[in-house]
Amino acid sequence: MNTGQHTRQMTELGRAEALRLLGSVELGRIVFTADALPAIRPVNHILDDGDVIIRSHTGAALTSSINAVVAYEADDIDPDTHIGWSVVVTGIARKVTDPDAIARYEQLLTPWADQHMDQVLRIHPEFITGFTLTDGTVGR
Amino acid sequence: MNTGQHTRQMTELGRAEALRLLGSVELGRIVFTADALPAIRPVNHILDDGDVIIRSHTGAALTSSINAVVAYEADDIDPDTHIGWSVVVTGIARKVTDPDAIARYEQLLTPWADQHMDQVLRIHPEFITGFTLTDGTVGR
Repeated sequence: MNTGQHTRQMTELGRAEALRLLGSVELGRIVFTADALPAIRPVNHILDDGDVIIRSHTGAALTSSINAVVAYEADDIDPDTHIGWSVVVTGIARKVTDPDAIARYEQLLTPWADQHMDQVLRIHPEFITGFTLTDGTVGR
Repeated sequence: MNTGQHTRQMTELGRAEALRLLGSVELGRIVFTADALPAIRPVNHILDDGDVIIRSHTGAALTSSINAVVAYEADDIDPDTHIGWSVVVTGIARKVTDPDAIARYEQLLTPWADQHMDQVLRIHPEFITGFTLTDGTVGR
């Protein structure tokens, strides 16, 4: 049996801790369906009142996620030690339409890519799951 | 307009370069449909003859991806400089059934999590897409 030097203990995360970790990073990946195929795209995000806020642009494949159930994932797993975490939230992606909210989010959330981003999307998590990978010795 | 200090130039990757980058890292994320919902799970991978090889276990949600179209994504984007890349391959996930192939992959690919992984999945890319984020000054 190949156990490996860096096989880590996987532990499920609670909702609050999972959201805290998601809010501790800026980059995640939105998972959606485009032309009936599974699709994924890295984007940067902020958390606002427990919702995930991202920016997109009209014409992007991502537009097909609007009013559909999407998953949003972030992780931080060290490639050498294999220690880290992953969080996935699942919920409906809605286009933010309130001009004041859009203006506020555009201030708070600068796209990393030089794309014209004219849409703001909000994902309200219905499900929040996550796990940590640890060395399994802490507190044991 | 909020351009941001670290807004980067996005450039599409060719197929060969995208595969090379995917093979340069060990961690990726498989994107699939489970119970009619978009699902994503980080896993470690190897590339074998241009196919993505991952391990899973019977009973995992991931099992629902077998013989279905999945996406597999990896990225390496610096959270400070916003420079990096992302690659997505899309194809059908097939269970590897040949005992010799299974034995070889189990030697080459040690799961990072302490889960009993009794399945080996192979994703043959039908589509390969990717992009780089650069500072836009090199070669210009």
